[in-house]
Amino acid sequence: MRVFIAGIDGYLGWSLAKHLAARGHEVAGADAFFRRRWVEEMGSWSALPIRSMSERLAAFAERFGKELCFWEGDLREYSLVECIFREFQPEAIVHVGECPSAPYSMVDVQHTVFVQVNNIVTTLNLLYAMRDIQPQAHLVKLGTMGEYGTPAVDIPEGFFEVEYRGRRALLPFPRQAGSWYHWSKVHGSNNIMFACKIWNLRATDVMQGVVFGTRIDGMEHDDRMVTRLDFDQAFGTAINRFCCQAVIGHELTPYGRGHQKRGFLPLRDSMQCLTLAVENPPRAGEYRVFNQFAEVYDITELALKVKKVARDLGLRVEVENLENPREEMEEHYYKPEHQHLFDLGYQPTHDVEAEMRFMLEDLLRHRDRIEAKRDALIPDVRWDGRRDKVYFLKAMAAS
Amino acid sequence: MRVFIAGIDGYLGWSLAKHLAARGHEVAGADAFFRRRWVEEMGSWSALPIRSMSERLAAFAERFGKELCFWEGDLREYSLVECIFREFQPEAIVHVGECPSAPYSMVDVQHTVFVQVNNIVTTLNLLYAMRDIQPQAHLVKLGTMGEYGTPAVDIPEGFFEVEYRGRRALLPFPRQAGSWYHWSKVHGSNNIMFACKIWNLRATDVMQGVVFGTRIDGMEHDDRMVTRLDFDQAFGTAINRFCCQAVIGHELTPYGRGHQKRGFLPLRDSMQCLTLAVENPPRAGEYRVFNQFAEVYDITELALKVKKVARDLGLRVEVENLENPREEMEEHYYKPEHQHLFDLGYQPTHDVEAEMRFMLEDLLRHRDRIEAKRDALIPDVRWDGRRDKVYFLKAMAAS
Repeated sequence: MRVFIAGIDGYLGWSLAKHLAARGHEVAGADAFFRRRWVEEMGSWSALPIRSMSERLAAFAERFGKELCFWEGDLREYSLVECIFREFQPEAIVHVGECPSAPYSMVDVQHTVFVQVNNIVTTLNLLYAMRDIQPQAHLVKLGTMGEYGTPAVDIPEGFFEVEYRGRRALLPFPRQAGSWYHWSKVHGSNNIMFACKIWNLRATDVMQGVVFGTRIDGMEHDDRMVTRLDFDQAFGTAINRFCCQAVIGHELTPYGRGHQKRGFLPLRDSMQCLTLAVENPPRAGEYRVFNQFAEVYDITELALKVKKVARDLGLRVEVENLENPREEMEEHYYKPEHQHLFDLGYQPTHDVEAEMRFMLEDLLRHRDRIEAKRDALIPDVRWDGRRDKVYFLKAMAAS
Repeated sequence: MRVFIAGIDGYLGWSLAKHLAARGHEVAGADAFFRRRWVEEMGSWSALPIRSMSERLAAFAERFGKELCFWEGDLREYSLVECIFREFQPEAIVHVGECPSAPYSMVDVQHTVFVQVNNIVTTLNLLYAMRDIQPQAHLVKLGTMGEYGTPAVDIPEGFFEVEYRGRRALLPFPRQAGSWYHWSKVHGSNNIMFACKIWNLRATDVMQGVVFGTRIDGMEHDDRMVTRLDFDQAFGTAINRFCCQAVIGHELTPYGRGHQKRGFLPLRDSMQCLTLAVENPPRAGEYRVFNQFAEVYDITELALKVKKVARDLGLRVEVENLENPREEMEEHYYKPEHQHLFDLGYQPTHDVEAEMRFMLEDLLRHRDRIEAKRDALIPDVRWDGRRDKVYFLKAMAAS
């Protein structure tokens, strides 16, 4: 199948390019290299050193015996999207080209506007190009479980049937996102649902949990094939950041009381799930929602798991809670459904600790890179608009 | 009270400036005159001739004995919004500065992107300026009843309590908008709800029905004080367009089978309601939603009312249904609640026919202006992306 990956230079995008190519798909992609710049702006870099796109493309061609067709450019420009669609004629489009960071979207008005506009416009451009050039193609759009927030009721996959004042209806499940970034994903979901309805397009909207992991399938012995791994406050997600902290002996830092619950899945599972979506397209006009995660964990529980695995590798670290820079519930009900991907054959990686061990081993080779950007680990972007480093809660309690 | 009106040159904006000033409020406003250009782009103009802003401001100063502070500029520029907030220090902000047209947003990818970005960014800029400069101010944001769509259950005001799988929660009522424009309003509503939560701002989100009318309070004897009245396919709404059609003897044209139900309210009621919102602000941190309309009508029922009132004035017109350029249900359940404004004292104008009579009399003086742009009355912007004039259904049936 011809699969176009929007944002192919990113953490998921580059992994997916390799994964889909290994399964025999014809892969193309575009990127403006924003992610590299954003992470730099946050005072950091990828813990695993990544190569330039030209080196990546050379390695890809060697490994798979065929070229990956790549466009460097900004998908907010409709003319670029149009050109790509005419040339490559994608049968599936995987959109992992949005800015994926909650803290980055909370920095100031310019960042908020950038993230929402970037994320909305790239998606609108892809929808229009589908309508006008590839109406049978399938859009697989990366959303986030964070679109739902943490409601006091179970979370279905996109839609729920409710009774209200004696009548019943199937309605979109209400979203209650927790950052400007998360809301940008809700806006995108709404736009896609509408495009499917009026233009008979087909789309899978992936409400993805928090992804962790450094590798997918052993292709990482070639340094040029490695995907990025961020640990800064804006682009480093929970387990990834904890593992980076562990390898330099830094405290593992859940925010607030640390009992936030989230769905998590290893990078290799994310690849498996996105591939299942690509290879099993919905019917024309269908907008379907997948809640994509392996299991729900409490953040502190995960920090303790990382601590345990790290200790097995001879690394001694403590879990120390930080003042929470976000506005979020720290203890709450959380029961999201995630049946659709299992119905398609998703087989989750149950051994999270084994996954963490791989990660720590991979990251230990680059502890100097993490040490060099140690300062990026402690957040200063706060949801209330202030910009100063949060404290360790124990230190606060003692003072 | 110091009230800043974003979009003060528009149909509602200019009316509200006069209405609030007459009640003793201090009014300021900004506009980039986009509306005048958009209507021109759609091949039309206001049926009632309107004056330049400098003439309007002179008339305003004469009538109220004080200047209206006006900024010409684009509220997508944060620096402008910041400057206005620092100088005027608004206690209330009424945001009627978004692009309000569903068909305009459906023209092509550039129009879709423009409408969504314009509407989202202006609102984000106002929210940030409130947070950083006037945190006690109250945002009154013009949304639309069209955000809800036409679900099979009753429509509450913003939120509903539901039981789902044995648990209960108060949730935002799911939106199912019907155009890129209507979705831009949903995106804005979501952003405002979030800003109130994290920044403790106060906002009233007005889900407004379809407004009709040419006058509010007798200030219209001064030609410089008249507000605009559009009749083109993009900016002319149902009753306004029917009245313009009636005065030139053009068929009144409901779309499709014509049994779409919508909430409607006269322009003078819209002013009354927006004023009630401004003068009764919510508490800090509160995001409240008002469904703002007087009564629900079937579109054909309204066309027949216009026909009847027109006949009393000696104008003979017929109701002739057009092929529907939109993707919408033409017969459906519709029961929206609208109690909040009544609780604040809203007294609806019940005599819709009297209102239509005023309109026809006002418009008869300018029938030549409508006749000159007759071509703008029949839509060619279609929801499926095609751009060609719709047919009269009777003609289709006969052929």
